[in-house]
Amino acid sequence: MSESSKENSLEKLRALGARLIESICDGKFPSIQIPDRSTANIHFDSELNHFTLGDGFVIRDSSNIKHIRSFAQLVWVASFAKNLLQSGRTSSLRDLYYSAEAFDIDFKNQAESDRIVTDLECAIGLAREEFAIYSEEHSSIFGEVTMEYTAPGYEGRQLDLTVSPDGLPIGPAIMTAEPLHTDANRILAVESGGIFSRLIESHAWRRFGSILVHLGGQPPRSTRKLLRKLTESLDIPLYIFTDGDPWGMHIAQVIISGSANAAHIPHLTVPSAEWIGITPQDIVDYKLPSETLKGVDLKRLDELSNDVRYTSTFWQDHIREFKEVRKKAEQQAFSRYGIDFVVDTYLPDKLSLC
Amino acid sequence: MSESSKENSLEKLRALGARLIESICDGKFPSIQIPDRSTANIHFDSELNHFTLGDGFVIRDSSNIKHIRSFAQLVWVASFAKNLLQSGRTSSLRDLYYSAEAFDIDFKNQAESDRIVTDLECAIGLAREEFAIYSEEHSSIFGEVTMEYTAPGYEGRQLDLTVSPDGLPIGPAIMTAEPLHTDANRILAVESGGIFSRLIESHAWRRFGSILVHLGGQPPRSTRKLLRKLTESLDIPLYIFTDGDPWGMHIAQVIISGSANAAHIPHLTVPSAEWIGITPQDIVDYKLPSETLKGVDLKRLDELSNDVRYTSTFWQDHIREFKEVRKKAEQQAFSRYGIDFVVDTYLPDKLSLC
Repeated sequence: MSESSKENSLEKLRALGARLIESICDGKFPSIQIPDRSTANIHFDSELNHFTLGDGFVIRDSSNIKHIRSFAQLVWVASFAKNLLQSGRTSSLRDLYYSAEAFDIDFKNQAESDRIVTDLECAIGLAREEFAIYSEEHSSIFGEVTMEYTAPGYEGRQLDLTVSPDGLPIGPAIMTAEPLHTDANRILAVESGGIFSRLIESHAWRRFGSILVHLGGQPPRSTRKLLRKLTESLDIPLYIFTDGDPWGMHIAQVIISGSANAAHIPHLTVPSAEWIGITPQDIVDYKLPSETLKGVDLKRLDELSNDVRYTSTFWQDHIREFKEVRKKAEQQAFSRYGIDFVVDTYLPDKLSLC
Repeated sequence: MSESSKENSLEKLRALGARLIESICDGKFPSIQIPDRSTANIHFDSELNHFTLGDGFVIRDSSNIKHIRSFAQLVWVASFAKNLLQSGRTSSLRDLYYSAEAFDIDFKNQAESDRIVTDLECAIGLAREEFAIYSEEHSSIFGEVTMEYTAPGYEGRQLDLTVSPDGLPIGPAIMTAEPLHTDANRILAVESGGIFSRLIESHAWRRFGSILVHLGGQPPRSTRKLLRKLTESLDIPLYIFTDGDPWGMHIAQVIISGSANAAHIPHLTVPSAEWIGITPQDIVDYKLPSETLKGVDLKRLDELSNDVRYTSTFWQDHIREFKEVRKKAEQQAFSRYGIDFVVDTYLPDKLSLC
């Protein structure tokens, strides 16, 4: 993590602690104010095209016996995070859950400790990655971009992300590295590992001037954060290529417009990103091997058609077409035309359209 | 892939094709002989400590109408593999399944095409990775070892595997790279990503002189192949650190002794590897946070106690102790003693014992 982000996070944690100590010195029970993240307080800002929290908040008051448990848990998580930052270390959510036992902090299960971590995110307005707590899931990245690392032992080291032809995992170290320079003119995020590998080994990344990201299904939040950082710092557009089904379309949507349960985290969306298919029309146009949409897919389409993120004509049209075509197709389905069809024909078609 | 492995694979594929053509030229229906991999023909070699196939074989005879379908599928997979090797490309199992459509080769589903790939492995005595077909799952690796790549565009390039502090995925490129040199004196394979990250960021890999591998549950076969290659080429031992439950113990066992469904693949096991816990006794000795074994865990222990790979006193003792202790614990459970306890205390305890 860069010294300035680390100092910013520490500052917010210290401020939280200082307010608590101040109350105690004043002879008052300390309390913590947390923005309310119940659905009633989550709004979709159609101007910004993402979810935000309203002005509502909840209070954790240590004088209220019903609040004491979660109050103490929250204070402990804040102190755990401060220690991580100060020692230049990271923790997984699972490790945090187990670490609590040493301090006699009693979490019923990991769901509870995860929720308290989210409370802390809300209380201090930072994503947990900014206070060194990560999930264990990883997407991958590959491409002509130079990153400067800040991870302990790697401070100042620069790495070109084409160094490993299998790609690099998007873990804590790359998350806290700074993009310095790229020759690429776009980022191409793909759902499946097979397509990611194909784009690397066919040298299509070079031909398309693309930094490649393997999403692997709905990507972890750290991947969305990195996509945001890369598009902003390098000032290049992001294209998202997924399977042709409601779930693939929604992978793109969450990257573009975010999700309600991350409404309290700013700077996580890429509003300018574009979904380049597989659209329902592509399934027809390219005569792709496909499967009939199942009940669960159709139900999902109904949900999406009523979702605030899908109100534009662009998305409503795709939802309607999925219902008309009643088919879904995987990215690998292009292989019926040869393993390079997706690279030689589909992606050039799509990327010149954008 | 190195030129010599590639040539070896191509040679075996060409020989298969030549036998078919010869039959046709002789006016005979061609047939293919495949070692039988039904349970009746799989034996556990307790000397070698892994599964092997017996002398039984099956015949795919193109004159038999019941065989024509699988015969044609097998020939197509062989030709697909030959094309991959000749063009220096790789394919996922899923891509292979879809690619078949272009050739009017009809697979009912991916399970069927996967099975035919296994038939080809048996028929020519090579693992599918040796003919450029991979699964999409990836483990990760990190450590002071220099690999020389053979992937297209990376031929002859040398990479030290400490280059990325998030580790490197074990994909097709690293699988076909050659280990040249290491300063490490052991390989430490761990089940969870949290422990893998901890070992990297605490610089324990350096302190323990260890190359680290993140298994992520039961690892894909490519990871087992790489573990075998590293232990052999670098002549260093392998230690396996998993969760303390029957599933973790079996992750270690499959790396050590292999599995029946890979009985036809030679050079996949690491018979000298050691499981360093979490053993049932560790759960007691280290007073780890634990859960009570459930019905499904106890059932699994019964299965393992009757498994040919678990006949030694070492394994039978662990199985018995699990049943006595009736507890299981995750690797992260050590965090109750602080995030570095596993690195500062448990692993030094275990590695000095080995």
